[in-house]
Amino acid sequence: MLSREWRLARHPVGRPADGDVELVEVDVPAPGAGELLVRNRVMSVEPYMRGRMSAGPSYADGYRLGAPMSGHAVGEVVASTVPGVPVGARVLHDLGWRELALVPATEARVLPGLDVPDSSWLGILGLTGLTAYVGLLDVAACRPGETVFVSAAAGAVGLAVAQIAMSRGCTVIGSAGGADKVRFLEADLGLAAAFSYRDGPIRESLADALARAGAEALDVYFDNVGGEQLECALRHMRTGGRIALCGAISTYDATTPVPGPRNLLLMIWRRLRMEGFLVDDHEARRADFERDMAGWLAAGQVRNIETEYKPGVERAFEAFLAMLDGANIGKMVIPLGGAA
Amino acid sequence: MLSREWRLARHPVGRPADGDVELVEVDVPAPGAGELLVRNRVMSVEPYMRGRMSAGPSYADGYRLGAPMSGHAVGEVVASTVPGVPVGARVLHDLGWRELALVPATEARVLPGLDVPDSSWLGILGLTGLTAYVGLLDVAACRPGETVFVSAAAGAVGLAVAQIAMSRGCTVIGSAGGADKVRFLEADLGLAAAFSYRDGPIRESLADALARAGAEALDVYFDNVGGEQLECALRHMRTGGRIALCGAISTYDATTPVPGPRNLLLMIWRRLRMEGFLVDDHEARRADFERDMAGWLAAGQVRNIETEYKPGVERAFEAFLAMLDGANIGKMVIPLGGAA
Repeated sequence: MLSREWRLARHPVGRPADGDVELVEVDVPAPGAGELLVRNRVMSVEPYMRGRMSAGPSYADGYRLGAPMSGHAVGEVVASTVPGVPVGARVLHDLGWRELALVPATEARVLPGLDVPDSSWLGILGLTGLTAYVGLLDVAACRPGETVFVSAAAGAVGLAVAQIAMSRGCTVIGSAGGADKVRFLEADLGLAAAFSYRDGPIRESLADALARAGAEALDVYFDNVGGEQLECALRHMRTGGRIALCGAISTYDATTPVPGPRNLLLMIWRRLRMEGFLVDDHEARRADFERDMAGWLAAGQVRNIETEYKPGVERAFEAFLAMLDGANIGKMVIPLGGAA
Repeated sequence: MLSREWRLARHPVGRPADGDVELVEVDVPAPGAGELLVRNRVMSVEPYMRGRMSAGPSYADGYRLGAPMSGHAVGEVVASTVPGVPVGARVLHDLGWRELALVPATEARVLPGLDVPDSSWLGILGLTGLTAYVGLLDVAACRPGETVFVSAAAGAVGLAVAQIAMSRGCTVIGSAGGADKVRFLEADLGLAAAFSYRDGPIRESLADALARAGAEALDVYFDNVGGEQLECALRHMRTGGRIALCGAISTYDATTPVPGPRNLLLMIWRRLRMEGFLVDDHEARRADFERDMAGWLAAGQVRNIETEYKPGVERAFEAFLAMLDGANIGKMVIPLGGAA
């Protein structure tokens, strides 16, 4: 069966460009033993993919030149050699960036029958939600009623962090790129205060947001951004505060190393803890997470917020670049036109 | 009774200079109710005192202009209004930088009758040892057999860290300022490898030390120094590694903020934890510490290593500057000529 897939043509330097990837038509064979043929319905694009496109080291395996790229997708099984996984089953897997995927059954998860859109499993109920959950509650040990600052708060992980924290009675401050997102965070989602890191000095914007939120200092900083926002957050941490390092999107395109915060001495004076984490280490918490998150969704305490890009696999790289530019609120997802 | 004491005359900018302090002769009255008159036998000078001399914020209260400076000292009670604390008792207190001290009994500790030199209570059995103990075992959660890097390893805290780690079967790498200290650490103390941060690029020296120690990577970094050594240590941390931030002596004299490490992204990729601490928060561990340390000292697993400066209170500021220049191995102590 004919399919189209995106391959890495060369390693991007700085901002990825059109010639770095190519869309190729391929003929996908029938599934072998233990394999599923999946027609992808929806895929997502995410900041960590930028790292995997680079030649240098990253925490995730790099994409190989000439090979199809990978990433999360939800699809429908259209041919199966696997007992117990019938045609029509809905599965989550890692072979996105393509229309048809030959997925080893061991690397596909048949989704439970919750009444949620497919794309939820790429976002709020997926690794995105789990990342927010373990980062906020386990790594940063966030307690009810604390003051939490989350950067890139209108991004997929940031929105999940903000909503989980608010559902636990925390005062939440968020940063985002641009006035529209700030408005969304304050007016629609109800954050205590939000500010744009693009408009005006971050240092003053954060101090001002704290004042508007009626908060003296930060107990928790959930860092998706790194760079200047990390330095400014350190400045306002309360004694005993915790920083969860989840991402550093502000530095991913940098071609020379970005200096760390100039005020690390505050870590000693204020007994701060800073910890990096990868969601892969926290699979043991998935059952807790799915139970809690399904409850929060059902109760309306947390919403699945996403940006749906124009449909079609041919739009996926364009959607990826738009995501890097910050065009999305919540997870950027691309419908791939699989049968409904 | 006549005494001499050091007062802060102006806040040093950059490296402290002679005119920043003055030695003043004072007449000390008889002790009032609840007070002890103590003739100091020995005092110590320490890096954190540099921070207290500055006008800017620090974690410890700043020294006030025109007032005597403070710091740890051990002395003998020569007059007492306090039941249970007789003349002749040996006490530890915080009113160093002077010959005679009027100490509120609530702020003096009558020392237990262990057979150790007075100065041990300023070093290995005092806050120095407790700092090493809680920083290494609690904050960095160091486990037997791990690989530990400690910067300023020939300093008072560094020597305690190195010896505690070795007594637990760890592979210890240390840095120090100069070839003499490196020789002491390797030949006399038996570290797996040591290097001078003054001779050659730190990045290469640390990589070389790891190779000589037969270690692949660091499980723990005990940071007394900050700056470049922190960045180089991050480069070699193993996944799941822990960094205890105890001090940043390399940055204390800086008049402009020192950028943090350029490779903080490794904190995420390798799931690293970095935590600042102050020993004051860990008083609850003092009984455990004194029991363990007394045992290690008695067994010869840990030694009290110190540098005794020329005697006399008039030498104290000179000794402080020499300590900042790194002239000491272990705690820098100044005998004050109290009755033996």
